[in-house]
Amino acid sequence: MGKRVLVALGGNAILQVGQKGTFQEQMENVGLTAKKVVRMLQQGLEIVVTHGNGPQVGAILIQNELAGAKVPPMPMDVCGGESQGFIGYMLCQSLHNEMVRAGLDGHDPVCVVTQVEVDPADPAFARPTKPVGPFYGAEQAKARQAATGEHWIEDAGRGWRRVVPSPDPKRIIEAEAVVRLVEAGYVVIASGGGGIPVTRLEDGRLQGVEAVIDKDLAGERLAWEVGADIFLILTDIPHAVLNFRTPEERPLGRVTVEELGRYQEEGHFRTGSMDPKVTAALRFVRDGGERAVIARLDDALDALAGRAGTQVVRS
Amino acid sequence: MGKRVLVALGGNAILQVGQKGTFQEQMENVGLTAKKVVRMLQQGLEIVVTHGNGPQVGAILIQNELAGAKVPPMPMDVCGGESQGFIGYMLCQSLHNEMVRAGLDGHDPVCVVTQVEVDPADPAFARPTKPVGPFYGAEQAKARQAATGEHWIEDAGRGWRRVVPSPDPKRIIEAEAVVRLVEAGYVVIASGGGGIPVTRLEDGRLQGVEAVIDKDLAGERLAWEVGADIFLILTDIPHAVLNFRTPEERPLGRVTVEELGRYQEEGHFRTGSMDPKVTAALRFVRDGGERAVIARLDDALDALAGRAGTQVVRS
Repeated sequence: MGKRVLVALGGNAILQVGQKGTFQEQMENVGLTAKKVVRMLQQGLEIVVTHGNGPQVGAILIQNELAGAKVPPMPMDVCGGESQGFIGYMLCQSLHNEMVRAGLDGHDPVCVVTQVEVDPADPAFARPTKPVGPFYGAEQAKARQAATGEHWIEDAGRGWRRVVPSPDPKRIIEAEAVVRLVEAGYVVIASGGGGIPVTRLEDGRLQGVEAVIDKDLAGERLAWEVGADIFLILTDIPHAVLNFRTPEERPLGRVTVEELGRYQEEGHFRTGSMDPKVTAALRFVRDGGERAVIARLDDALDALAGRAGTQVVRS
Repeated sequence: MGKRVLVALGGNAILQVGQKGTFQEQMENVGLTAKKVVRMLQQGLEIVVTHGNGPQVGAILIQNELAGAKVPPMPMDVCGGESQGFIGYMLCQSLHNEMVRAGLDGHDPVCVVTQVEVDPADPAFARPTKPVGPFYGAEQAKARQAATGEHWIEDAGRGWRRVVPSPDPKRIIEAEAVVRLVEAGYVVIASGGGGIPVTRLEDGRLQGVEAVIDKDLAGERLAWEVGADIFLILTDIPHAVLNFRTPEERPLGRVTVEELGRYQEEGHFRTGSMDPKVTAALRFVRDGGERAVIARLDDALDALAGRAGTQVVRS
């Protein structure tokens, strides 16, 4: 068998900055993304796909909000599950269609609704940082905060926005099923939007929580649990860079975990943006993965071949 | 191994008539339903679950409608996918929790986002009959009909409502993956809400369509494709009945496909309600299934044991 690759798709694989978010736009983008994944299949690789869900779950939260007087709003875990069904469907269908176009026989791709376990004692729960949903005016936000206990913060100039915790993913609940399918030759889509965050009660039962897990960190857990050889993080920039937006700015090509860890400690990477990708890449290779790559979606194939992006290796 | 059972859950397994549709209500109902499924697992049965999505996809359609000025509304296939992620998540988590409560070891249940193929030449496309989404006033409905080409009808006294085609399911696209998982010991949730309806283009590509597939008919296709021995249709009434709401009303217990087919031809069963369940049960047994059962959710275990519900057998 070929190598096993966990492909983590950034938001731009589904919706481009400046687009409105119509279904047609999203299907077109997903179609282009699917073409790249099918090229990987043609190289004999085994593929598991994960993806972001920011704009989609954002839209679902706004819909819940605006229809709240008529339809009981659902909690964030349910909205996350909805976004997995939405995006998983688009990806499955587009992958099927691109396989047909490429004349590639094979099983139909499968999307598995995925819960991801987080630690209820994660310090993130005491310090919500991840903005979600629509912008509000100050008064509205404060009233809502008082009524619900939710956390709202002012987002420089753009209004007030709810923030939720972004805990560290511990375990992909459905990982074994994903392994089973990958080993049987399926392309699997899983852990969309970082997965539906759940905590485990003392007796072993699971419970959804109002939180958002970083999709690259969850992707790393999934990559590890499915025994991926390569963890390919696709985004909208060509490399991780040192001294970002300074005259000393320098792209990172091939880099060892030791060097990259040092750069991260030196504060080269932006929180909430490149930093979690770097953390995810470091974890993957430190845990025994062969190679993690951070690259632009357009460069996916070259990045897999080691000719583009930031290539994180053991030594 | 024990027998393989396809359990088709009616709407009341998730939301009861008269409830508002809060998450808490739905989780409570799903929890009770999960208890019954876990009892089946304890009997050594292999279980595939499918379910309705009427109130949930209805809520999603209303949310899309009311937020339409802010967020581009999604087509029905996407809304169907969202409802699968929503309900699949609740079912997976509740089944896991009830397995824990019962001290039952086993894989975590898995929900597979499911597309169901329909024939673009299905006569249903020329004659939309299935009401979906919110009620409108006459003027609003007519304006919308004129603007979009959608079909709207007056629903006796309750206002105007959009109707979509309800084509016959032909093939469950993800059936092979479901089989793979069931054979590996997983409880699988699939084809929720009758599945996301898709048609196959001449070249083999798939395309979503604005339609709703009956969930029992899709469940029958799934039962057949996964080689189920028993097809258990759970609803809110204890039997199929003859001469419904007449002095000659009579519940149907054990019945052969020949007898049941004759009763159906005689018009004993209501279109859109019991009739598709009878059709699904007949198809399953005629195609070689051992037994199809139509029973009340509360009677699920007795019905499986042959002691409740309408038991449809070959002879």
